[in-house]
Amino acid sequence: MSDQARFQWPVRVYWEDTDAGGIVFYANYLKYFERARTEWLRSLGVGQNALKESTGGMFVVSETSLRYLRPARLDDQLIVTTRVLEQGRASLVLVQQALLFSEQATPVPQGLVAENEKNLRPETMPILCEGQIRIGWVVAQTLQPARIPANIMKALQ
Amino acid sequence: MSDQARFQWPVRVYWEDTDAGGIVFYANYLKYFERARTEWLRSLGVGQNALKESTGGMFVVSETSLRYLRPARLDDQLIVTTRVLEQGRASLVLVQQALLFSEQATPVPQGLVAENEKNLRPETMPILCEGQIRIGWVVAQTLQPARIPANIMKALQ
Amino acid sequence: MSDQARFQWPVRVYWEDTDAGGIVFYANYLKYFERARTEWLRSLGVGQNALKESTGGMFVVSETSLRYLRPARLDDQLIVTTRVLEQGRASLVLVQQALLFSEQATPVPQGLVAENEKNLRPETMPILCEGQIRIGWVVAQTLQPARIPANIMKALQ
Amino acid sequence: MSDQARFQWPVRVYWEDTDAGGIVFYANYLKYFERARTEWLRSLGVGQNALKESTGGMFVVSETSLRYLRPARLDDQLIVTTRVLEQGRASLVLVQQALLFSEQATPVPQGLVAENEKNLRPETMPILCEGQIRIGWVVAQTLQPARIPANIMKALQ
Repeated sequence: MSDQARFQWPVRVYWEDTDAGGIVFYANYLKYFERARTEWLRSLGVGQNALKESTGGMFVVSETSLRYLRPARLDDQLIVTTRVLEQGRASLVLVQQALLFSEQATPVPQGLVAENEKNLRPETMPILCEGQIRIGWVVAQTLQPARIPANIMKALQ
Repeated sequence: MSDQARFQWPVRVYWEDTDAGGIVFYANYLKYFERARTEWLRSLGVGQNALKESTGGMFVVSETSLRYLRPARLDDQLIVTTRVLEQGRASLVLVQQALLFSEQATPVPQGLVAENEKNLRPETMPILCEGQIRIGWVVAQTLQPARIPANIMKALQ
Repeated sequence: MSDQARFQWPVRVYWEDTDAGGIVFYANYLKYFERARTEWLRSLGVGQNALKESTGGMFVVSETSLRYLRPARLDDQLIVTTRVLEQGRASLVLVQQALLFSEQATPVPQGLVAENEKNLRPETMPILCEGQIRIGWVVAQTLQPARIPANIMKALQ
Repeated sequence: MSDQARFQWPVRVYWEDTDAGGIVFYANYLKYFERARTEWLRSLGVGQNALKESTGGMFVVSETSLRYLRPARLDDQLIVTTRVLEQGRASLVLVQQALLFSEQATPVPQGLVAENEKNLRPETMPILCEGQIRIGWVVAQTLQPARIPANIMKALQ
């Protein structure tokens, strides 16, 4: 799979993200991955709150499987990548990685990431955390599984 | 005001609560205070989720003013106290403190706190954080301020 | 495996734990599991902060694999279970579950859980979330993997 | 004080930030303010982790006083402002505001904020939360108060 198909989103490590071990608290990678998924969906024209109000449905996370390979520290600049591994009628499996862009260096402007993603060359960055996330479409009121709406399926192609 | 009027709730410091400074991240005292307020209300027979479903109303926090005096560390056992400072028709002001019960010592069973609170002698414990929290009653759907329901007012007497 | 071998720890759902879907934010189950592991270790005489100071080592999470089966809501009372699946020289794999003890009901005193765990009958409670967590022993300063100290190995038997 | 003197930082509302009331959990504004302070310091050449390693000192929060005026929701785009109210030898008082830039609209590129801050016209945006934060300089090892290093004082002028 080519790099162009991987959506990239910058994440900065703040005090709130760290723990007394001096590193990013492992549960927070799920938050980083969520932010990147949200921005990936937004980049495809899929706004989650707007969708919930218009369709009464939403994505929920049903499975997460993560490996924590290297620690990140306060002020580190990360890049989080997202790509689709499997696409079903009611759920998606995504592969996500948190990469170390630079240790405590200057920020990556969000615009830059969108425009020049090939230049970022994520394949050269150390992998901090990686995993698979399954998200399923549900009726917001009942949380019952349902088919992903056609316009979202189309946007995901 | 006598000690009996102060509600006490034990809180343990876990990894999730700490930051890279090796101490409890200051924003987390707002979570500790929220837990203690919730249990104080529950002890008065006020269940927040049940209320939201039966009355369509809920308490929201409108002002917080906290001073951070001493740090807490991983495994410390804290006691959080709650008492009413002002009681109005649409809002309450509470005084809350996080006290250091013991550093990394044996837990305080929740039952003990309820039954023997005089024995805990909070006046002898170092104050870690203290402050005032204003909570107001609102209509859940619109978030507009409203009068606190009569049965809650009565429970708070 | 008998129930006695499963450590149980009560967890209450507060506002801080929920998200705009009205349910517990999935990443927070990692926090619940962490609290239960910490209390399980403490029940075996293993205090993590004390250990870090005495041995210079600590457990870190290296893999998490979770399935989210049913939602939990504000005020729900959960029981989190922990048992050892694999025990190696440098790491452990634990199986953990979050069970629904009661919806918005009276709290489970922590003492009760420790003393009467058979009475709680976790096998009758709906499973909200379950998964496997691998924790490895590392040198705190360098985060390099190391052998689990002998006294901890013994306590885990 | 002119608008140019207010540092501005964009913050997006994600699932992790919301609670079961459907709005941003109030404690999370302290996180938003922390991110904006960190980026304000970084814009002045002050990297907190680098400082901790080079000087052995760090800023800690000693007082927070916040008012929550209007709720923010999932996908809302906020702007957080920071300006210095008081500057002492050992501590600073900052005024911070979270403003509603747009509800669920297109993101504000971080570059734009830095370059065109006058165009953003924060004075026209609804205030969601505002408050004062006191941060003090301490010796990281002992957490004892100390004088803010001269190069930081100079950067803050």
